[in-house]
Amino acid sequence: MKKRAAPAAASITVTVDLHERSYPIIIGHGTLEQIGPLVAAKLKARRAAVVTNPIVGKLYGRRVATSLQQAGCEVVSVQIPDGEEHKNLASLSRVYDRLLRQRIDRDSPIIALGGGIIGDLTGFAAATLLRGIPYAQVPTTLLAQVDSSVGGKTGINHPSGKNLIGAFYQPRLVLIDVGTLQTLPRREVLAGLVEVIKYGVILDPNLFALIERDLDRIIALDSDLLRDVVAQCCRLKAMVVARDEREADYRSILNFGHTLGHAVESLTAYKRYLHGEAVAIGMAFALQLSTIRGYCERATMQRVIELLKRAGLPVEIPPKLRGEQLASAIESDKKMASGKVKFVCLERLGQTRFEYLTSEEIAAVAAQYINVGGQ
Amino acid sequence: MKKRAAPAAASITVTVDLHERSYPIIIGHGTLEQIGPLVAAKLKARRAAVVTNPIVGKLYGRRVATSLQQAGCEVVSVQIPDGEEHKNLASLSRVYDRLLRQRIDRDSPIIALGGGIIGDLTGFAAATLLRGIPYAQVPTTLLAQVDSSVGGKTGINHPSGKNLIGAFYQPRLVLIDVGTLQTLPRREVLAGLVEVIKYGVILDPNLFALIERDLDRIIALDSDLLRDVVAQCCRLKAMVVARDEREADYRSILNFGHTLGHAVESLTAYKRYLHGEAVAIGMAFALQLSTIRGYCERATMQRVIELLKRAGLPVEIPPKLRGEQLASAIESDKKMASGKVKFVCLERLGQTRFEYLTSEEIAAVAAQYINVGGQ
Repeated sequence: MKKRAAPAAASITVTVDLHERSYPIIIGHGTLEQIGPLVAAKLKARRAAVVTNPIVGKLYGRRVATSLQQAGCEVVSVQIPDGEEHKNLASLSRVYDRLLRQRIDRDSPIIALGGGIIGDLTGFAAATLLRGIPYAQVPTTLLAQVDSSVGGKTGINHPSGKNLIGAFYQPRLVLIDVGTLQTLPRREVLAGLVEVIKYGVILDPNLFALIERDLDRIIALDSDLLRDVVAQCCRLKAMVVARDEREADYRSILNFGHTLGHAVESLTAYKRYLHGEAVAIGMAFALQLSTIRGYCERATMQRVIELLKRAGLPVEIPPKLRGEQLASAIESDKKMASGKVKFVCLERLGQTRFEYLTSEEIAAVAAQYINVGGQ
Repeated sequence: MKKRAAPAAASITVTVDLHERSYPIIIGHGTLEQIGPLVAAKLKARRAAVVTNPIVGKLYGRRVATSLQQAGCEVVSVQIPDGEEHKNLASLSRVYDRLLRQRIDRDSPIIALGGGIIGDLTGFAAATLLRGIPYAQVPTTLLAQVDSSVGGKTGINHPSGKNLIGAFYQPRLVLIDVGTLQTLPRREVLAGLVEVIKYGVILDPNLFALIERDLDRIIALDSDLLRDVVAQCCRLKAMVVARDEREADYRSILNFGHTLGHAVESLTAYKRYLHGEAVAIGMAFALQLSTIRGYCERATMQRVIELLKRAGLPVEIPPKLRGEQLASAIESDKKMASGKVKFVCLERLGQTRFEYLTSEEIAAVAAQYINVGGQ
């Protein structure tokens, strides 16, 4: 008898429509135990590998493995140490070694159980083992549930920069159990919430209004509300990815707040801010830039910044980073092309525009940055 | 003034038809100097990286770099030591390091200048740098010109086996200069010729008859004849790849002779035979198996084996490899699925059939192997 059977009726399925590469995202509470039946039915697998980290493995590894075994799958496990510094070639090599020595074949899917680091690295391993084997994402952080587990961006970091080695490779399945957020540190919940707010800002004024209204219930991890909010974020991301899978153009609206966010992360050596926190600073900045250049009303900027602040998120660039350093960090971002950065501006909630700016133009706005923290 | 201007009128263009991923193969003599204009025109690049090995680099690196520079491209070079044992994660990491430190971007193509090892490794680096950047193949061995440079199979080896890490990733351009074969060791020319003969056997009786008739002129490296033969092989490979890019089924006819060939290579630690030589043994074996099982006439088997022998190629499995060892080596091949090997048999020249056999069934035929070497 299963102890925590999934209330199947309460889960939501969103489809990422990519023709022969289409796949479902299943979002619910207590859905973790569905992994076995899903892998057995959808991927017809008799063996599966689970890649996770020691923390998530300890919390959820057993439930996932048991579910797979009960569905008739033999399970091979690999653990990668937790932390961005382990999203590298050495960890990838460890996954290769373990899975190849266990004679993984093209019919044995890999399950990524964890946050964005585990998801990105596992997806890349799946993309490159035997020239591509199936994989499933089981994201356990809010950031991974609403962003990195959907859309097929996989990869690892290099000493020269983040995500410089990777591939576009879609999973066959994303299984989201918002119950796993109960064990996520509050700071990481809030950092993940930044991407939720981002979807509201750039794509969905109704979602934005819902977060404004129900912020406290979201932060208190109300299960049904979380499920609905995560599902709506997945719908929005699925729509963007279906329209522009390989980021030829449109998909880069998801970089809203990320140009400056990445620069701030890089200049603080990825230590001071979580990714989402740096993106919160970057979003506040993108709104300022949009307002200063006359694309966006001041009231909209203030409304978004107010919500970020209510959630306890940082919104100011540290004063010492506002000069040439920032320009140089923006320039070294891989999204730079022919001397200009494609910068995502906001016109109004749900409406963005791309501007091609030099890093100096961006840094100049940072220099005249308004003290938004104290408003 | 260029010393060795390419006689453009004499080159042949074959198109690999893969919709938006289609690309040309340009085959000629003295075509190496076209790389600069082609990269500048077709890829609109202002920077390009050239990956090669010390031997090929010394012979042709300067000509390729000069051509690229004259076409307005800045050139970054990387060398990988020669040899199958260097087609690994360490060499890949070296390519990543060098190109990322040189700030390669999505508009800077990589040129693979060399044989199959350089081509496979470079193609995989291109597939995975910045989630995919353009690359061009400039193959300098007969094997690479007729086989590995066309079709987008990229990858590296792992201690557990060959090509276990990789991706399907098509080049934007293949530029073949049959003039480079003049500096190729004769043994490697003959090993490459095995794949040429293979195309004749499995797909094109006319090509087979041409090789029978003109074997001596081919081995003497007659330029016009080589160009025509290589072009015909590229046409045949392009046709197969266009029909089944990711080897769902049909493309595996190209594995004719490879099931046993790989086993023989592996059991002799990749030292005794070149890949093509092992495939010659594998082809002779596949013909024997096809004849013993009644699919193929004995005369056809003898005709093909005779041609391989005339070219000085090995056709016999070393006697000590005919037992369980062989079965076990076949089993560890990655193409194994649910206990059976998809074995490519011949019915007649130009007509193959797939048979699903256990490794024991295959090894049993090897045990009753006829002494073909002495016929």
